[in-house]
Amino acid sequence: MRPSKRQPEEMRAVSFERGISKHAEGSCLVKFGDTQVLCTASLEEKVPSWLRNSGKGWVTAEYGMLPRSTGDRMRREASSGKQGGRTLEIQRLIGRSLRSVVDLKALGEMQITVDCDVLQADGGTRTAAITGGFVALHDCLSWMQARHMISVERVLKDHVAAISCGIYEDTPVLDLDYAEDSAAATDANFVMTGKCGIVEVQGTAEGEPFSEEQFQALLALAKTGIARLVELQKMAVS
Amino acid sequence: MRPSKRQPEEMRAVSFERGISKHAEGSCLVKFGDTQVLCTASLEEKVPSWLRNSGKGWVTAEYGMLPRSTGDRMRREASSGKQGGRTLEIQRLIGRSLRSVVDLKALGEMQITVDCDVLQADGGTRTAAITGGFVALHDCLSWMQARHMISVERVLKDHVAAISCGIYEDTPVLDLDYAEDSAAATDANFVMTGKCGIVEVQGTAEGEPFSEEQFQALLALAKTGIARLVELQKMAVS
Amino acid sequence: MRPSKRQPEEMRAVSFERGISKHAEGSCLVKFGDTQVLCTASLEEKVPSWLRNSGKGWVTAEYGMLPRSTGDRMRREASSGKQGGRTLEIQRLIGRSLRSVVDLKALGEMQITVDCDVLQADGGTRTAAITGGFVALHDCLSWMQARHMISVERVLKDHVAAISCGIYEDTPVLDLDYAEDSAAATDANFVMTGKCGIVEVQGTAEGEPFSEEQFQALLALAKTGIARLVELQKMAVS
Amino acid sequence: MRPSKRQPEEMRAVSFERGISKHAEGSCLVKFGDTQVLCTASLEEKVPSWLRNSGKGWVTAEYGMLPRSTGDRMRREASSGKQGGRTLEIQRLIGRSLRSVVDLKALGEMQITVDCDVLQADGGTRTAAITGGFVALHDCLSWMQARHMISVERVLKDHVAAISCGIYEDTPVLDLDYAEDSAAATDANFVMTGKCGIVEVQGTAEGEPFSEEQFQALLALAKTGIARLVELQKMAVS
Amino acid sequence: MRPSKRQPEEMRAVSFERGISKHAEGSCLVKFGDTQVLCTASLEEKVPSWLRNSGKGWVTAEYGMLPRSTGDRMRREASSGKQGGRTLEIQRLIGRSLRSVVDLKALGEMQITVDCDVLQADGGTRTAAITGGFVALHDCLSWMQARHMISVERVLKDHVAAISCGIYEDTPVLDLDYAEDSAAATDANFVMTGKCGIVEVQGTAEGEPFSEEQFQALLALAKTGIARLVELQKMAVS
Amino acid sequence: MRPSKRQPEEMRAVSFERGISKHAEGSCLVKFGDTQVLCTASLEEKVPSWLRNSGKGWVTAEYGMLPRSTGDRMRREASSGKQGGRTLEIQRLIGRSLRSVVDLKALGEMQITVDCDVLQADGGTRTAAITGGFVALHDCLSWMQARHMISVERVLKDHVAAISCGIYEDTPVLDLDYAEDSAAATDANFVMTGKCGIVEVQGTAEGEPFSEEQFQALLALAKTGIARLVELQKMAVS
Repeated sequence: MRPSKRQPEEMRAVSFERGISKHAEGSCLVKFGDTQVLCTASLEEKVPSWLRNSGKGWVTAEYGMLPRSTGDRMRREASSGKQGGRTLEIQRLIGRSLRSVVDLKALGEMQITVDCDVLQADGGTRTAAITGGFVALHDCLSWMQARHMISVERVLKDHVAAISCGIYEDTPVLDLDYAEDSAAATDANFVMTGKCGIVEVQGTAEGEPFSEEQFQALLALAKTGIARLVELQKMAVS
Repeated sequence: MRPSKRQPEEMRAVSFERGISKHAEGSCLVKFGDTQVLCTASLEEKVPSWLRNSGKGWVTAEYGMLPRSTGDRMRREASSGKQGGRTLEIQRLIGRSLRSVVDLKALGEMQITVDCDVLQADGGTRTAAITGGFVALHDCLSWMQARHMISVERVLKDHVAAISCGIYEDTPVLDLDYAEDSAAATDANFVMTGKCGIVEVQGTAEGEPFSEEQFQALLALAKTGIARLVELQKMAVS
Repeated sequence: MRPSKRQPEEMRAVSFERGISKHAEGSCLVKFGDTQVLCTASLEEKVPSWLRNSGKGWVTAEYGMLPRSTGDRMRREASSGKQGGRTLEIQRLIGRSLRSVVDLKALGEMQITVDCDVLQADGGTRTAAITGGFVALHDCLSWMQARHMISVERVLKDHVAAISCGIYEDTPVLDLDYAEDSAAATDANFVMTGKCGIVEVQGTAEGEPFSEEQFQALLALAKTGIARLVELQKMAVS
Repeated sequence: MRPSKRQPEEMRAVSFERGISKHAEGSCLVKFGDTQVLCTASLEEKVPSWLRNSGKGWVTAEYGMLPRSTGDRMRREASSGKQGGRTLEIQRLIGRSLRSVVDLKALGEMQITVDCDVLQADGGTRTAAITGGFVALHDCLSWMQARHMISVERVLKDHVAAISCGIYEDTPVLDLDYAEDSAAATDANFVMTGKCGIVEVQGTAEGEPFSEEQFQALLALAKTGIARLVELQKMAVS
Repeated sequence: MRPSKRQPEEMRAVSFERGISKHAEGSCLVKFGDTQVLCTASLEEKVPSWLRNSGKGWVTAEYGMLPRSTGDRMRREASSGKQGGRTLEIQRLIGRSLRSVVDLKALGEMQITVDCDVLQADGGTRTAAITGGFVALHDCLSWMQARHMISVERVLKDHVAAISCGIYEDTPVLDLDYAEDSAAATDANFVMTGKCGIVEVQGTAEGEPFSEEQFQALLALAKTGIARLVELQKMAVS
Repeated sequence: MRPSKRQPEEMRAVSFERGISKHAEGSCLVKFGDTQVLCTASLEEKVPSWLRNSGKGWVTAEYGMLPRSTGDRMRREASSGKQGGRTLEIQRLIGRSLRSVVDLKALGEMQITVDCDVLQADGGTRTAAITGGFVALHDCLSWMQARHMISVERVLKDHVAAISCGIYEDTPVLDLDYAEDSAAATDANFVMTGKCGIVEVQGTAEGEPFSEEQFQALLALAKTGIARLVELQKMAVS
């Protein structure tokens, strides 16, 4: 039995609140249960130096957690003077995931930065960030289309979403919350597109190695979860 | 005429949303119009080294802005590797302000850290942070009282709130929003207690120096503003 | 009775020693009693990037304390790897104060950096830095005028000076030394021009909040102090 | 056809040169073709603070590249003042991988740090580091066993090795070198034990997402590769 | 002919002004011509961790230059976030030089930090710092002796002083000023004791290598210079 | 008797292994006994900003030690966030030494960076780095000559090599290993050219000052050592 009483293949309630930022070109407060991530997409007219005069744009992401988004207060990274390895790892993953569905050529020489700031954490912050970051990115592109800068349809090739799975008390389960995550033997994150393409797979044995069979079970769970998330994204942005 | 059509002595709508964090001992989302600051109060059982074995506790604050809380995206301080001078200045001010109404002896050897993170900025983030930070602090103390750790009445000596004033087009006005703030000739922040004690006065001429008469007008405005804020705090926490 | 036997409205002996640097375009060793600050004004032909091609110049300041300028040796900021919040706060204040009397347009696209390094500290280092920094700035401008680069009269609109006041043992007193500063209930710094315009007011309750009456008394003291400092500056630079 | 003329399932020549460090308790120069990584295992008698008095030990890893291990000279991380996100990601992966086969309780309160420094890079540095790091770790444990500190058999539960796979010109291939890695559409790293347990799976679409079928092909390749690497490790350490 | 009209073996006017700091246990403003270095010696009751419980004390030094001590303003090291290589090199040299004449056992478990801050630079700042730092150290030890903490005679084994020499227009000259230093082909610094023991020799060819004969000529000059400096130190501290 | 049984004037076995890097324009693994330093010379087409449009090139060096190159594991400088004073001192020395035999004008506006990374340390790493760095530099210049970019003969004016000497148990000895270095009373490093020009002399008393006679003995030893090293370099590069 999962701590949250959910069925193994049952995700938490997922919601997208769009347009919550007065300033950002696109924004979304995404919730996976008690996990809340504020995603904003910011348009800038300059690209990284290695893309200058290439005709191509760039999509990048930054990730942060508010100090008391977690059970114990974490040290503020701005005050400790650097972003930790976990933060850098996650923001690189979010950026790669979002770029996998963007035609950078069709975007043109502009940069969109998606900031994902965790207001409250209860497991799965990186998957919520990717899934909600897509919505913020979508809305930023709509903002640009409304100003005749691009065509959303040509820039955005597909949906992208992410979900975690794990082996909790010997059972493969979908969408781990914090209680499960800290107890799970194995933890895997999947990033997939609306057309079931795999963008990223990350599976980690926390203690004992896991078997190929277990991994296949997690992959199967992830596919159903991602399909559901993409459906919810479509409802949100339509 | 103010850009927001407000009367000179008219504040923006102010609201306090309490208990919005699942994890923090006290929390409050404070809004001064479009300015939104998420304040959490975190209790830790250890004090800074210089207070060890003194029997006294400590209240401190940290301040941050989400990168796209502002009109243009700001660089994330965690990524630039240090907190800027403005950030350090503001968080020192918040900490001093909150400590001015706390009996550190009555708190005992514990530390409360009030994190004030600006979700959306439209002028007056530091005054909102102090005013809302007080509510988060109050609720953290109530949490402690419920566990028989302290008596709120003995620790919290008074209310404390803050407001900005400025000279906008030659008129002294209360509670500047961003449009006024960036155009104002003079900008002053006042921190005062429920009993009208002054905790902090900061007045700055942005261009031309201001006269003593102008300063007295700002002080008078601030007193009415603070009185109203304290009233609202009382309604919020009762 | 003040520790130094001074009357409440009595400042310490103030002196300006000009031209003490072989290299700097303007320089001044300012003393407020035992507080000694070495101020140099350095002319550079480049302005910050946001002013390029604006036709306007810039005046900025940096502040530092020698490690053993204080009673206990402080850690050297160059070795700790960053300037502390207090340092950043003070150097921003010095810069703003000096700019308040400079016509940046008349200066032209050049930058003057005023370095204020505390050789010995005994309270009031920031007010001494502003007051002496003005003299160094003046002499730098004279240096430029001698080379037909600018007209001092057109660039420098007024004098600017600063003084601290505080409530020491219930009495408002002028120009706190360290013994008073560390014991004072309230500490305020005032920056004013030769024409009595207010440039900056900063009042802080160290423990108990202070009353409006007390604040008015401090303001009155400051006005007499600043008037005296401006007189001394005039004697120094004439 | 692969640039190196290798068959799709053909690895590069792999070699382990043990005992190459005069000082380290265990050491190994591992080569995967032209990729050369110097691995040293250093024993320290202290553990991280969170393990103190737990009776458990720790195994951690650090990773670095010599500035000219690559085609173009990279900036030295010691001089740029921080380890980049890629470095942090890789050293966390190496540490997790090695710990997956270590019984930390049987190790006792001691820490082993495995340093993996890339002398020459030609793709697959992280997989070489894990595979060679295991040999250095093994030899460090043998060193300890020779001094009656532990039993290798009880501490080391299994072998662990890593290999990369990718889709190069639509063909799944094993053990990418730099020429393939920079051109591959998909890149995956697998860390597995001698008993075929999966420790870590990381698959990333560089451009287009990949299909589940493609991913299964990579997994199959990886299993044969890891089996071969474990065989080579056994020959090396026996 | 030297730019300063001095004879090849002629040093600049050297002076020591003692007791110039209100706070430091020992202090000295040393001048070698226009080079001015403020040296303070600060006593602390704690030693570096590697000396704890060893019964031995420590003498260390820090070095800094005020930003406008030089012809062009240098960037403040506190603001650039680190001490440069030259600074670290010099302060290590000063520390080693002073320790060479101190009996650390006789000092007991206390640390003396000698801060050498260059107020004005005109060549030879490191040699002035060592020579004046000795006087500050001496006075700190006298302060301690007056409080019956140590015996100066037992702690201080000898005098130590330093001087630069160089080949200027093919002539070996003593005590280079900035004009010579920047033009000299060879620059050497010598640190020697009152009994003519060599503590440190550093000779550097700025362009062409120098010959052994030239080096011997510099060494001969240095010996006469150091002897003179030690004489002056003795007059100063007696 | 020396710990290594060597005669006082006997150097350790010295070897140069050239061309060991697949990527670098010049490379050399130099060994002085158990001290091993990997030197690579990297050509870049840009020079430091102060040399732009000067027609002159630049040669610079960086130095690092692998964490377990030493008896006890050292903290990785990339992870501690800065290069220590010793590292900066050594890499400045290597750069100056190599530049002393290079005609920067004949090199043209290009920069060569010589990286010296210590794989294993047993005393004398800086002297090995200079001596082997010369070989890497030579081979980089040969690479350039083969591409008709420069003439080695015109760029490289002479050989340069370095050796350490010290007073070990009252006897002047050549080429200290770690056992001697840590016990020696005096330690000196000499950098000299093939024509016996002195580039750098650094002599340091570790405890007691040394006499002029002792210093002369060290200098005599160094001359024979350098002559032998230059001979070996000539054999290596011919």
